[in-house]
Amino acid sequence: FQDGQRKVDYVLTYHMKKPGGSRSGRQSMYMLTERAVARSLRFLGDAFNGHEDQKAFRREEFEGKLRDMGLELEKDEDANVSGVGFLKIHAPWNVLCREAEFMKLKLPTKKVYEVKKSRGVVEKISTLISKILEPLHPQFEERQPKNIKHLSHTFSREKQHLQERRTFFKISFLSVNVFFFCAGITSLLGSGVYTAAYPLHDVSDKIQPHTYYNICLDELLYEEWANYSVFYKYQPIGLVRKYFGEKIGLYFAWLGLYTQMLIPASLVGIIVFLYGCATVNDDIPSMEICHPKTNITMCPQCDQVCSYWKLSTACGTARASHLFDNPATVFFSIFMALWAAMFMEHWKRRQMRLNYEWDLTGFEDEEDHPRAEYEFRVMQKSMRKDRKSQHKEEKLTCQDRLPAYMTNIVMMLLMIGVTFAILFGVILYRISMKAALHMSSSPITRNNVQLTVKTTAAIINLVVILILDEVYGAFARWLTVLEAPKTEKSFEERLIFKTFILKFFNAFTPIIYIAFFRGRYGSFFFFFYNFLLYNILFSYRMEECAHGGCLMELCIQLSITMLGKQLIQNNLFEIGVPKLKKLIRYIRSKQGAFQEEERQKKLQRYEIDHFLEPFGGLTPEYMEMIIQFGFVTLFVASFPLAPLFALLNNIIEIRLDAKKFVAELRRPVAARAQDIGIWYNILRGVAKVAVIINAFVISFTSDFIPRMVYQYMYSPDGSMHGFVNHTLSYFNTSHFQEGKETMDPLLLGYPVDICRYKDYREPPWSETPYEISKEFWTVLAVRLAFVIVFQNVVMLMNDIVDWLIPDIPKDTSLQIHKEKILLVDLFMKEEQCKTYMHQSTASPSDYDHCCRSKNSTAAHPRSRPNNPNIGS
Amino acid sequence: FQDGQRKVDYVLTYHMKKPGGSRSGRQSMYMLTERAVARSLRFLGDAFNGHEDQKAFRREEFEGKLRDMGLELEKDEDANVSGVGFLKIHAPWNVLCREAEFMKLKLPTKKVYEVKKSRGVVEKISTLISKILEPLHPQFEERQPKNIKHLSHTFSREKQHLQERRTFFKISFLSVNVFFFCAGITSLLGSGVYTAAYPLHDVSDKIQPHTYYNICLDELLYEEWANYSVFYKYQPIGLVRKYFGEKIGLYFAWLGLYTQMLIPASLVGIIVFLYGCATVNDDIPSMEICHPKTNITMCPQCDQVCSYWKLSTACGTARASHLFDNPATVFFSIFMALWAAMFMEHWKRRQMRLNYEWDLTGFEDEEDHPRAEYEFRVMQKSMRKDRKSQHKEEKLTCQDRLPAYMTNIVMMLLMIGVTFAILFGVILYRISMKAALHMSSSPITRNNVQLTVKTTAAIINLVVILILDEVYGAFARWLTVLEAPKTEKSFEERLIFKTFILKFFNAFTPIIYIAFFRGRYGSFFFFFYNFLLYNILFSYRMEECAHGGCLMELCIQLSITMLGKQLIQNNLFEIGVPKLKKLIRYIRSKQGAFQEEERQKKLQRYEIDHFLEPFGGLTPEYMEMIIQFGFVTLFVASFPLAPLFALLNNIIEIRLDAKKFVAELRRPVAARAQDIGIWYNILRGVAKVAVIINAFVISFTSDFIPRMVYQYMYSPDGSMHGFVNHTLSYFNTSHFQEGKETMDPLLLGYPVDICRYKDYREPPWSETPYEISKEFWTVLAVRLAFVIVFQNVVMLMNDIVDWLIPDIPKDTSLQIHKEKILLVDLFMKEEQCKTYMHQSTASPSDYDHCCRSKNSTAAHPRSRPNNPNIGS
Repeated sequence: FQDGQRKVDYVLTYHMKKPGGSRSGRQSMYMLTERAVARSLRFLGDAFNGHEDQKAFRREEFEGKLRDMGLELEKDEDANVSGVGFLKIHAPWNVLCREAEFMKLKLPTKKVYEVKKSRGVVEKISTLISKILEPLHPQFEERQPKNIKHLSHTFSREKQHLQERRTFFKISFLSVNVFFFCAGITSLLGSGVYTAAYPLHDVSDKIQPHTYYNICLDELLYEEWANYSVFYKYQPIGLVRKYFGEKIGLYFAWLGLYTQMLIPASLVGIIVFLYGCATVNDDIPSMEICHPKTNITMCPQCDQVCSYWKLSTACGTARASHLFDNPATVFFSIFMALWAAMFMEHWKRRQMRLNYEWDLTGFEDEEDHPRAEYEFRVMQKSMRKDRKSQHKEEKLTCQDRLPAYMTNIVMMLLMIGVTFAILFGVILYRISMKAALHMSSSPITRNNVQLTVKTTAAIINLVVILILDEVYGAFARWLTVLEAPKTEKSFEERLIFKTFILKFFNAFTPIIYIAFFRGRYGSFFFFFYNFLLYNILFSYRMEECAHGGCLMELCIQLSITMLGKQLIQNNLFEIGVPKLKKLIRYIRSKQGAFQEEERQKKLQRYEIDHFLEPFGGLTPEYMEMIIQFGFVTLFVASFPLAPLFALLNNIIEIRLDAKKFVAELRRPVAARAQDIGIWYNILRGVAKVAVIINAFVISFTSDFIPRMVYQYMYSPDGSMHGFVNHTLSYFNTSHFQEGKETMDPLLLGYPVDICRYKDYREPPWSETPYEISKEFWTVLAVRLAFVIVFQNVVMLMNDIVDWLIPDIPKDTSLQIHKEKILLVDLFMKEEQCKTYMHQSTASPSDYDHCCRSKNSTAAHPRSRPNNPNIGS
Repeated sequence: FQDGQRKVDYVLTYHMKKPGGSRSGRQSMYMLTERAVARSLRFLGDAFNGHEDQKAFRREEFEGKLRDMGLELEKDEDANVSGVGFLKIHAPWNVLCREAEFMKLKLPTKKVYEVKKSRGVVEKISTLISKILEPLHPQFEERQPKNIKHLSHTFSREKQHLQERRTFFKISFLSVNVFFFCAGITSLLGSGVYTAAYPLHDVSDKIQPHTYYNICLDELLYEEWANYSVFYKYQPIGLVRKYFGEKIGLYFAWLGLYTQMLIPASLVGIIVFLYGCATVNDDIPSMEICHPKTNITMCPQCDQVCSYWKLSTACGTARASHLFDNPATVFFSIFMALWAAMFMEHWKRRQMRLNYEWDLTGFEDEEDHPRAEYEFRVMQKSMRKDRKSQHKEEKLTCQDRLPAYMTNIVMMLLMIGVTFAILFGVILYRISMKAALHMSSSPITRNNVQLTVKTTAAIINLVVILILDEVYGAFARWLTVLEAPKTEKSFEERLIFKTFILKFFNAFTPIIYIAFFRGRYGSFFFFFYNFLLYNILFSYRMEECAHGGCLMELCIQLSITMLGKQLIQNNLFEIGVPKLKKLIRYIRSKQGAFQEEERQKKLQRYEIDHFLEPFGGLTPEYMEMIIQFGFVTLFVASFPLAPLFALLNNIIEIRLDAKKFVAELRRPVAARAQDIGIWYNILRGVAKVAVIINAFVISFTSDFIPRMVYQYMYSPDGSMHGFVNHTLSYFNTSHFQEGKETMDPLLLGYPVDICRYKDYREPPWSETPYEISKEFWTVLAVRLAFVIVFQNVVMLMNDIVDWLIPDIPKDTSLQIHKEKILLVDLFMKEEQCKTYMHQSTASPSDYDHCCRSKNSTAAHPRSRPNNPNIGS
C-alpha cells in the first residue's frame, strides 16, 4: 500500500475508459465485520449483463462488499499503465484469523515433539540411504531440524496463544483467505467487470514477513527449483507449497514422484533393449531368414505392381524386429503393469504423507462456487418462467440440459469420427504412395519404399495429432461451456474428461490401428469376411506388415509420435508461445520504446505482474503428463525405451514448469487440495487399459505366441528350427484372380509356380485349399488363452500390490496417532489450569508453573507484536 | 445403583473364591478428573501374569484408575449369583461431556431447519412411491416430522447451550464413552482378572432417560424389529443404532439393503427359469436326442463294467439341462454381475447417507487398543533382552514374527490341501460307487445309478463342508492368536481374512471342480496329457458328465450345498446351539431348582444379563452372508434360482438375528463405525471373481458356445439341426486297448463296430485318427474369445455404473452443504453477540434480542436440570 506498511495481498485490475476519474488514488479504509458473501453472490447473479457504466457501478458495489467483510482496499487508477485501473486489497490480521477459524485451518502449535526413529538395522540402512541422497536434497532443508515436528491443531482464536507464531504466516494461507473473500470475483471476471485478479509475486521489498529463514522465498525458489543446474535434486516441495499453495504443490510432488519412478522403469527398459541387442545373433528365425541358403520365394505384397520377392531380403527387418520382439519384452510388459500399480500406490502414500505434513488431514473440501454462466442460465430460465410460477431460485433440470447433452455426445462422436477419418486418410496415403513408389523405375526408390512410406506417414500422423490436439482442446472447452455445469469443480472435471477422451483417441488411434488391425485381416477380419472395407482396402494387401511382425512398425510409429510430441509441444509450445505472447503484449501496450523502458523502472510490483501471462490452470500440464504416461504404459511391450525418453523429457519438464511458474506467469491463487482429483482416476483408467492392451500386443502383434506354439507343439526337435517355414503357407500362382497377378512375374529371374505367404492356411493341394488351417485355430486359441491369463494374473498382482502396500505410510500413521495423544494431553493440562484458576484453591505460582510450562519452548510467547503485518 | 437414582451404565464381573469378603457391598464414590488411561494401560502390561490374589490386587488398582477418571463405582459381591462379583459403573454427566469433547462427537444442536424437497414431476413420483411404501415402514417413524433436521456440530462444553437436549442422551453415546474408559479392560478380561464386561439391556425400570417418545427402546425394538410378523417391513435402523451403536446398526442396514436388492435379482431369476421351462420343447438338440428315430450308439462311459448305450436314454437329462442352459442364462449372468456392482454402489450411498444422518461425517477412527496378547509377547521379549539392551518399550520386529508368519502360511496351505484331499476323496467315492452299482445285477439300481451317486456325493460334500466350516473357524482364530497382531482392529481383520479364505475354499472347491474340471480332460487336460492323475483318475472316464453338459450336475451340487448350508447353519446352529448353551449354563449354575426359581424373581437386571450369552462379534453373521453372496453371484449362470433362495433365507435371517441380539445375547458394547470395514473389500473381491467365473461357466460348462459355433460356422442351413451329431466323434470298437473293452458288448442286442463319444476328435478313418480336430480348436478359440469379451465388457459396465452413480447421494450432499452454511451463520451471529457484549456499546436488550433469537426454538433452554441422570 502507499503507506508502505501494509502489504498488497491481492490485486484486481479493470479497464478504464476515462482515465483520471474523480476517485483515483483515493485511499479508503472501512472495517465492518458483517459477512455478506452469500448475499453479494446472489446480487452478482442478478445483475449479470451490464455495460461499461454498469460495470463501474458493480465494481463499487463489490468493493463495498469487500469492505464489509473487513478488507482494506486501495485504488490506483492513474498508474503508469494507461487504461488499467488497479484495486489493491489488504487483508488485516483479525480478518485472517476469523477466516482461518471458519475454514478449520490446521496450524502448527508451539508444542514440539521429537519424532522417534526406529532402531536397529532398518534405521541404519535408512540413515545410510539418506546420507547417500544428501546431495540430492535442496540445500535449505538442512537448516531445519529433521526429527522435530510441531503439533498441529485446528486454529481457534481462543487458543491462539498455543499456536506457533513463526510459521503462522503461511503465504498460501494468506492468499487462500483473500481468495475466499473474493468468491464472487469469478463471475465479475467472466462478465468483464474486472479484467484480472491475481496475488503478487513476492520480491524482496523487505517489508514482508514472508521470508523463510531470512531468505526470500521467491529467490530461494528461483535458485533451488527453477534452475536447470539442480535437475538431479529433489524438488523443494515444501517451499513450492508455501509459495503457490497446496494444489500446485501436489502437482509438482506428483510430477517429481512420476519422474523418480521412471528411473527404475527406464533402467529395466534399457536392460531389455540391450538383451535384445545381445541375443540378436542367437535368434534362430531371423538367422534362418538371413541365411544365404534360404531360398523361399514369397508372393507379391500387392496386386499387379508388386512382384515375387526373396524372403532373405527381409533379413534386416527381421533382425531389427528381434530387438523389440523377444521374450524379455513379455517380462517387461508385466513389469511395467506392476510398475504402474506401484506408482499409484506410492502416490497414494506420498499424498497421505504430504497431507499430514501440510496439516490437511481433517480438512473437508471447500464449497464449490457456482459458475457465473450457470447462474446466468438459471436467471434466463427463471425470467422466461416468471409468469408461470412464483418461486425464483430455480435450477437447471435435465430437460433444460438435454439439448446441451445431446450436442455434447454427438459432437464427441463426431470428433472421434474425424480422428478415424484422418487415420483412414493416412492409410490411403500410405497405400497410394507405396503403389506409386513401387511403380517408379528407379531401383533406389524402390528399395527405400518401406522406410520412406513409413516415416512420412508417421510424420504426417504426428503433425495431424499436434494440430488436432489444439483444436480438440478448444473444442472440449466450448462443449463444456455449452453444458453449463453448476460449479467450478464440476466444470473442470467435465472439461478434463472431454479433453482427455479426445486427446487420448487422437494420440493413440493410429498406434492402435498399427498394433492390432494392420495386416491382421487373417485373424481379425475373418469374421467380417464380406465386410465392405475388406474389399476396398484390405484386398490391396498393401497394409501387410513386413516379415518379422508388425512390432517393428509399431515401434517406429510410437517413437516418432512420442518424441515428436514431446519435443514440439514442450519446446515450441511451452517455451516459445508464452514468450511470443509476452512479446505481442509488450508491443501492443508500448507507446514508445523509450518511455516504456523508463517506466519499467518505476513500475510497482503489482504493475510488473500485470504484464505477466495469466495462470491458466494445471490442466494442460497434467494432460501432457497423462498422455505421456499412456505412451509409457500402453504399448510398452513394443517400445521398451519409452520410459527412458519420458524420463529425459520430464527432467527438463520439471524445471521448465518451475521457471514458468516463478517467472513467466502471474502468481496463481493458492488453492487448497488434498489430492490430484480426477487425474488419479484417469491414471487408474490408463493403467487398467494398459494391462489389456499389453496382453493383446504380446499375443497378437508380437511373434511370441506362434513361436511358443511351434516350439512346444509342432517342432520336431523342440527347437525353433523350421519356424519360418511353418508360418508360411503355399500359394499356387495359377490360382491368381483375373487382374490380380503381378505384372512383372520374372523379376527374380525364373518363373514361379508356388509362392509362399505369411498365414496359416491350407495348401493348394489339400481338400479345402486356402481355407484357414488347424494351426491357425490352435495359435488363435493359445493367443486368447494368453490374453486371459496375462490379464488376470496382472490384475491379481496389481490387487496384491494394492493390498500389501498400506495407503498410509506406517511412520505417518504412528505420528498421527502420537500427535493425537499429545494434543489430548495438552488440552487436558490446559483444562486443569482453568479448573485451578476457577476454583482459586491453588496459589497463583502453582498456576504459573502449570500453564507456563507448556509455553516454555518459545521464550517470550507474547513479546512479538500481535499483528506482524504492521510490525517489522 | 442402590440409591435408585443413578443408572448402572456398565457391569464388570469377576470370580470370587471367598465369597463374603471384607469389602463386599461397600459402596464407594470418588471423583477425580485426572486422566490416566495411558498410564493405566502401561501398568496393565507390566503386571500381566498373576494369580488369584494378584487378580484382586489388580482389580483394585484398575478400579482406582476408573475412579481417577471420574467414574462412580459400586461393588456387589454378596449378590444372588454365588461366586460372581459385580462391579457396577456409572458415568456422571460431566465426565461424559468431557469425553464427548475429546472424541469430537457430533451432536444435533437446537437449530432446526427444513429440508427442502425438490419440486416437479420427480417429487410427485417420490411422494407416490413413499405413499405406496408407507405400510412397509416401521410404525414409530411416523411420529417424527420428516422434513425437519437438526443441525449437527462437534460437541463442545463451551457451546453446550446450543445443543439439542432431548436427543442428547443417545444411549450408544453413553456406552461408547464408558467403553472408552474401560480401554484397558480387554487385557484384564484376557487374563481372567474380570470374567465379563457388558452394558445392560434397557428394560423399563422407568428411571432411565433413554426412552424414545415415552416408549422404551427395548420394547419398541422387540415389537417392530425382532418379530417375524413384520418381515415385510423396513427395519427401524435408527432405533437399532440408538440401542446397539453404529457398528451393529450398519450390519443390519447392510443386511437389509442386501435383502432388498435380492428382490429384483430373484424376480429376474424366476423369469429366466420360467423362460427355460417354456422353451424346453423348442430346443432342437434335446428334441433330436429324444426323438425316437435317433439311433446313435454311444461308447461305454467307463472301462470294462460299462457297456454301449443309446443316446436317447439321455433324453431326460438333456431336457432338464435346457432349463438352466439356455441363452437367457447368459443374459442373467451379465445381469447379476451388474447387479453386484449396483449393490456395491447402493451400499456406498446408503452408508454415506447413514453417516450423515448419524452425524459420523467428520469422525476419525478411534485409536486402536493394543491387544493384551501382543503386550504380553512384547514383555516376554523385553525380559529376555533385559541384560543386553536398556530401552524397554520394544515392539515385535519382523524377525520375531517370522515363525508365526511361516506357521500361518504353511498351515493355511495345509488346510487348503485338506479341502482338496477331501474333494479327491469324494471323487473316489463317486467313482467306486458308480462302478459298484454298475456291477450290481438289479436293473433298478443300475437305472438309478446316476441320481443316487450324484445325490449321495453332494450330501457327503455338504456334511464335510459343514464340519470343516466349524473346524476352520477355530483354526483361523488359533492362527491369528499365534500371529499376535498389535491391535484389536488388525486382529479382527486378519482373523476375518483367514476365515474367509478357508471357508471360501471349503464351500466352493467341489463346485469349481464340477464346473470346470470334471469330464473336461479333453480341453483342460490336453496340456497335461502325461500328467499322473490323468492315468489314475481320468482314464476311468467315470467322471464324465452326462450328455447335455455338466451344468445340470453343477446345478444339483449348488442347490444342495446352498440350501443345506442355509437350513442347517441357520436353524440348527443359530437357533439351536445358543439355546442349548443357555440350558447348559442354566443347569450348571443352578444349585437347586426351587431356590433358583425364587431367586430369578429377585434378580437385578445386571444379574439377569449375566446369564445371557456373551456377544461374540459380528464376524460370523457377516461371514455367512458373504458366503451366501458368493453362491448368489459366483455360479449364477448355472443356477438362476439362487437369488430367490437367498432372499427367502435372509428374510428369516434378519428377524432371527434381531431376536438374538435383543433377547438372547448380553447387550453388546456400542461401537462407532463409519463403514463395514474389510467386508466391503471382500465383497468387491467376490464380485470381481464372479465376473471371471461366470465367463468361464458360460463358455466352458454350458453348451452355449458350441451351439453358437455350430449355428454360424458349420450348420448347413443356419439352424441347430445336426448339432448333436456334430458334437459326437466316432470310435472304432476294434481300437479298444487291451483290458479296456466292455465286458458286456451285446447289451444293446447287436454287435457294435462304431460307437460315438462326446468330443471333437478326428474319426478313425482320417490321416491322424483320434487326434484333436480343427473343430475343437475353433470352439476353444471362440470360447476363450467369449471369456475375454465377457470379462472386459462386464468390467467396463461395472466401471461405468461405478462412475455414473455418485458415491454421495445428491440430496445428502446438498444437505451437508446447506448445514455448513447454516452453521457458519449460527456462529457468526453468536460471535456478533459476543462482540456486542464485549464492546458494551449495544443496550442489553439488543443483546437479548440478538442472542435469544437463536434459542427461541427451545422454550426454556436452561430450565431442565443440568444432569438428567440425577433428576427425574
